[in-house]
Amino acid sequence: MRLACGVEYDGEPFFGFQRQKQTPTVQQCLEEAIGSVANHAVGVTCCGRTDTGVSADLQVIHFDTEAVRNPRQWTLGINSALHKAISILWVKPVPDEFHARFSASARRYQYRICNRSVRPAINRHYLTWVLKPLDDVRMNQAIQYLLGEHDFSAFRSSQCQSKQPVRTIKHASVSRRDEQILIDITANGFLHHMVRNIAGTLIRVGKGEQSPQWVEQVLQSKDRRQAGITAAPNGLRFVGVDYPNHFNLPTSVGHAS
Amino acid sequence: MRLACGVEYDGEPFFGFQRQKQTPTVQQCLEEAIGSVANHAVGVTCCGRTDTGVSADLQVIHFDTEAVRNPRQWTLGINSALHKAISILWVKPVPDEFHARFSASARRYQYRICNRSVRPAINRHYLTWVLKPLDDVRMNQAIQYLLGEHDFSAFRSSQCQSKQPVRTIKHASVSRRDEQILIDITANGFLHHMVRNIAGTLIRVGKGEQSPQWVEQVLQSKDRRQAGITAAPNGLRFVGVDYPNHFNLPTSVGHAS
Repeated sequence: MRLACGVEYDGEPFFGFQRQKQTPTVQQCLEEAIGSVANHAVGVTCCGRTDTGVSADLQVIHFDTEAVRNPRQWTLGINSALHKAISILWVKPVPDEFHARFSASARRYQYRICNRSVRPAINRHYLTWVLKPLDDVRMNQAIQYLLGEHDFSAFRSSQCQSKQPVRTIKHASVSRRDEQILIDITANGFLHHMVRNIAGTLIRVGKGEQSPQWVEQVLQSKDRRQAGITAAPNGLRFVGVDYPNHFNLPTSVGHAS
Repeated sequence: MRLACGVEYDGEPFFGFQRQKQTPTVQQCLEEAIGSVANHAVGVTCCGRTDTGVSADLQVIHFDTEAVRNPRQWTLGINSALHKAISILWVKPVPDEFHARFSASARRYQYRICNRSVRPAINRHYLTWVLKPLDDVRMNQAIQYLLGEHDFSAFRSSQCQSKQPVRTIKHASVSRRDEQILIDITANGFLHHMVRNIAGTLIRVGKGEQSPQWVEQVLQSKDRRQAGITAAPNGLRFVGVDYPNHFNLPTSVGHAS
């Protein structure tokens, strides 16, 4: 039987999602906790890997098991065995053709900037601090050039393992909420460091160092050296995933009944 | 010369505000950092002490110094010497009669509850988790009984050092924002554990264990044993302080110029 889970995590204590030599990682913690409830070794597959320090409001994973538990038993059991910086939001049986990564039609990321004269103390692990005033209207104009299907090589890390650099950005906006600048991007998929490289590029526009139109030139250059620096991981948040409706996955956590 | 400072802190790493044997505390970190900029020992006085684990959006402190620096030099200098979980928002010269505690006309607290079926991972240090569904409308009815000048002995910790138990609540509300229940209280002052004891009492009403009117009975009893348990410190946030207008203290952080 295949099960899908919605997972929230605070990236601060982890060396990213993926299992590796350095510990803890989110994947390792999930596999150990789920394995202890299933009573057998479990491998989990996620929708999209996240880097060290990156948090997720809703990551989706799937795993296969022969263990028989109802969704509430899975949720409570895994959560009581799990690192406190990770929480299982829901568990749902899915057909075998469901795949957390390949079935996803879109991913949503948010990049959060604390834009004020002094560094943040509260939420400092979830924010990137930019001291110089940023013009969110110019940044929002700039990000619109990225909408649609493009070769995003200019925003791709040299370590990216993807076979091809074309992605489709479905929604992109920059807005201000008091001292915070929020960069929201929805795409069918993302290249390695793509959001952080876009954020670093938009920050240059927001500071007035470059025009909004410059972002279009950077995109068309397909040259990573033309774009801004990779912005810090703290500000990055994996916000959610879209799947085809027929999988009927939960859209919220809900209350205990 | 007397200086006032706006201070933001994340309470998670600290044993509360006040200096004591256990370290670190917010006061100790502030006095060491300010002393290193002033080049002499400095004692700070705060508007309102906070317990272990309690964060502040805007705590106000004052200190006296003979050192000559401009406000921006003080702010940058203190912040670079300070624990990363504390940030100086602004520094302003004030007349000698200004006192961070005695000049304050009102303090604002917020208590935040994550009300859903699974525990929070993100922001878990800033939230108290209540699994059972809470009725925020009933809780808001209940808190209205506390408005005005009352003897708050029923909500006073046995360790409270205040000379008298009468306080005036100027504003009180309970609201829901998605999965969060927010309890907002503004008063001229607070007794020890007063907000956490009110929160614990309101949670009983929200769960349907008691009627909103029960809170009036608890208040009138002046008996701590009648009220609910002291709610956990995580959810508590010191939101801000009001001072008479003639002190002309900053109301926001502003951008670097």
